Amino acid sequence: MRDITPLVAPQSIAVIGASSNPSKAGGMLFSNLAQGNFFGKLYPINVNAKEVMGHKAYATVADVPHTIDLVYIVVPRQHVEAAVRQCADAGARAACIVTAGFAERGEPGREEEDRLRDIARSSNLLLAGPNTIGMVNSNVGMMGSFVQFPQWEKGGVSVFTQTGVFTGGVALSVMSAKNQRLPMSKSIDVGNKIDVHELDFLDYATKDPETSVVGFYVERIDDKAEFLAKAQELRATKPVVVLKPGRTAPGQIASIAHTGSPPIPEDDFDSELRRRGIVRVAEEEEFVDTLRALALLPRARGRRVGIATTSGALGVISTDLVIEHGLEMASFAPETMAAMQTVLPEWMEAANPFDFWVGVDIHGAHKAHEIGLTAVFADPNVDLVLCTLMAAATADFEEFGPLIKRLRREHQKPVAMVIYGGSDRDRWLDVLEGSEVPVFSSTRAAVKALANVAQATC
Amino acid sequence: MRDITPLVAPQSIAVIGASSNPSKAGGMLFSNLAQGNFFGKLYPINVNAKEVMGHKAYATVADVPHTIDLVYIVVPRQHVEAAVRQCADAGARAACIVTAGFAERGEPGREEEDRLRDIARSSNLLLAGPNTIGMVNSNVGMMGSFVQFPQWEKGGVSVFTQTGVFTGGVALSVMSAKNQRLPMSKSIDVGNKIDVHELDFLDYATKDPETSVVGFYVERIDDKAEFLAKAQELRATKPVVVLKPGRTAPGQIASIAHTGSPPIPEDDFDSELRRRGIVRVAEEEEFVDTLRALALLPRARGRRVGIATTSGALGVISTDLVIEHGLEMASFAPETMAAMQTVLPEWMEAANPFDFWVGVDIHGAHKAHEIGLTAVFADPNVDLVLCTLMAAATADFEEFGPLIKRLRREHQKPVAMVIYGGSDRDRWLDVLEGSEVPVFSSTRAAVKALANVAQATC
Repeated sequence: MRDITPLVAPQSIAVIGASSNPSKAGGMLFSNLAQGNFFGKLYPINVNAKEVMGHKAYATVADVPHTIDLVYIVVPRQHVEAAVRQCADAGARAACIVTAGFAERGEPGREEEDRLRDIARSSNLLLAGPNTIGMVNSNVGMMGSFVQFPQWEKGGVSVFTQTGVFTGGVALSVMSAKNQRLPMSKSIDVGNKIDVHELDFLDYATKDPETSVVGFYVERIDDKAEFLAKAQELRATKPVVVLKPGRTAPGQIASIAHTGSPPIPEDDFDSELRRRGIVRVAEEEEFVDTLRALALLPRARGRRVGIATTSGALGVISTDLVIEHGLEMASFAPETMAAMQTVLPEWMEAANPFDFWVGVDIHGAHKAHEIGLTAVFADPNVDLVLCTLMAAATADFEEFGPLIKRLRREHQKPVAMVIYGGSDRDRWLDVLEGSEVPVFSSTRAAVKALANVAQATC
Repeated sequence: MRDITPLVAPQSIAVIGASSNPSKAGGMLFSNLAQGNFFGKLYPINVNAKEVMGHKAYATVADVPHTIDLVYIVVPRQHVEAAVRQCADAGARAACIVTAGFAERGEPGREEEDRLRDIARSSNLLLAGPNTIGMVNSNVGMMGSFVQFPQWEKGGVSVFTQTGVFTGGVALSVMSAKNQRLPMSKSIDVGNKIDVHELDFLDYATKDPETSVVGFYVERIDDKAEFLAKAQELRATKPVVVLKPGRTAPGQIASIAHTGSPPIPEDDFDSELRRRGIVRVAEEEEFVDTLRALALLPRARGRRVGIATTSGALGVISTDLVIEHGLEMASFAPETMAAMQTVLPEWMEAANPFDFWVGVDIHGAHKAHEIGLTAVFADPNVDLVLCTLMAAATADFEEFGPLIKRLRREHQKPVAMVIYGGSDRDRWLDVLEGSEVPVFSSTRAAVKALANVAQATC
């Protein structure tokens, strides 16, 4: 077991290949690091420059008058080995090789990787990459990636990946959406994974006070038994979500082409994860939805779902999905039914799903939502709350924000919302996500997120 | 078999309960009809008004100097029967009872419905409702609903529902999104369905030249065999999509509570639909996604999928999903592989999924996308195209629009896109949806849409 803090949460960073040209890889990455307001010291390494973007440049890592925690290597492939050697000689603690074209290239590339690993291991240099989009850590302000993030919200989600798409595209899409929250701590893409691996990260995440939820995108795991054991240990205190593709034979072939190495055999991986309470997700939307839900919501006490809805049809649709995702429909307590009945006409009987659209019609949007939502949140038989609401002009009301904030605070229960409607919808989304109530794109996504929260936390 | 044209595509409309007060149901509905620029004549029926929103008012339907096709009834429940009688006496051809509180109320309400049906049937008056959100027909400019639609795109999708949520909430959400298209012809919500039913609509849709894709949300079907037979007949020329919840026992119970009548038993409904090439969807997002895909895309010639991607991980994820949705991975033709190879370094071998991110790096975004996407679209072994692309600053290029338009036009193949990225993403979405290339929220949604297009059209 080794400490990967210098790689994941460095106090000083150098960039070999940093330049003032933001259209070049080294320029882009350095510019993002500089603009990301890294808390520590930042050093461009460039033999031809006196300074890069206002930072004094050095010819080599050894010339920097301090020992460096992390060195990003963004140079053409043929210069990578020398750069790694430079890091080792200067006593740097970690290096992240952004450059691609190693094991993906086949046997010669694999041999080069072996040499890089040998250099690193013989001098205790932690290595990430090659072939990575980089690493982000919002706790130390490290935006060590090509990608520029418009709004990186600091939070508890840490992900470890063998691919750049989450840091590079999916996270960017979520963060670019006006009202979708993904509070992130760290995103570590180790690319071809020649040194630092998922077991190191499991150890780190278990102890990291800034990480509260952990996600993995893995295609290859060298020690599956150890991964399962450590993930189970981590799961005792923090929810763990695993996206491992290659469930089908063609998927396994695609995985070999992608990572250049044999993928994790499917075997009983699925059931091994499940019986340890670790969530296995199938695709990128479910991955992000589950991480979002786990970051914003409290732990679940059980699997009984109470549904509040202003659409009878979505109530029926949700009920099917609840059962099909292994959750249960809660039996509402008598006091809940009595409270619900006060917004229904006498001829209509409260039930789960609780459809209170007619109450909106009779008693107005405010009273109907206040009584309807409170009843479901407060019910002692409800572990998980699912709300599918219509933000129509006739259903909107000023007090929606305070109502949601109060329910979320007073009842510490996981809740998933789906909101349909027109221009009023945006206001509701702002209020909900701002109150730590995640909103999902469909009832299916919402039910799946609740099922995963239950699987990961109870 | 009877002709429901007067109900679905009327040439004249009267509204019993129309008023100048837009906060009242009758006022809202009349205002939406008036603002929707209905092509025919529009008559407010209101004994206390001389005119409503600039339209001359009449005391009763019989006072209107022409025979009326369709009368909307938006009056309190106790006045509904008299209103229906008024329509029958005046020789109106159809009526739509918007007012709720009938069979949902139990036995007394069911008896009232029986009386309404008797009045209607004895005078050949077609009835929709009670308990409906109304009906929209973009071909005649009829916005006969409480809901006001910001951008109702005229097109070929017609839906028949027993619930208001699609016209009322889901469609509104899609239409309020900046760049998501749902080209609609008709949305007919018959609510409690006391007269006009799904068989009438199947007959109508089969002959309606303005309808090219048909969607049903049904919980109760009185004659299942006839429904299947007529749906099969319709499917010979137009794709048919069915959302029927109540797949689980709790879902069936929720369905009874929602519609007040016994739901369709599950039995072998699923396999009966499948073997007729009718698509069964599970939830509202899949319903809308499938209708969107069928409206924008050509028919499929087979089930072989070619994947173009700029994310290795999404390529692997998509491959699993393709197989799990009953589609096949296409074997690319030699000429396709040769074309693909021109944007790859020699050490990287083209395959399906075709991951050309490294080509973007080497040859620039324009050339890599042009060659990569063209190769997959043009391959003779590819029936369905799936693209998962990163609209990152480094991958964006001016010619994206013309490229997509050309590929969509030259290769008449169903294509589904998933786009991740930041601010550049919006531009790509505009171009794609504008070029009749639907964009989905995730690889799962995209693969599901392609599988449903194949099921519905080949």
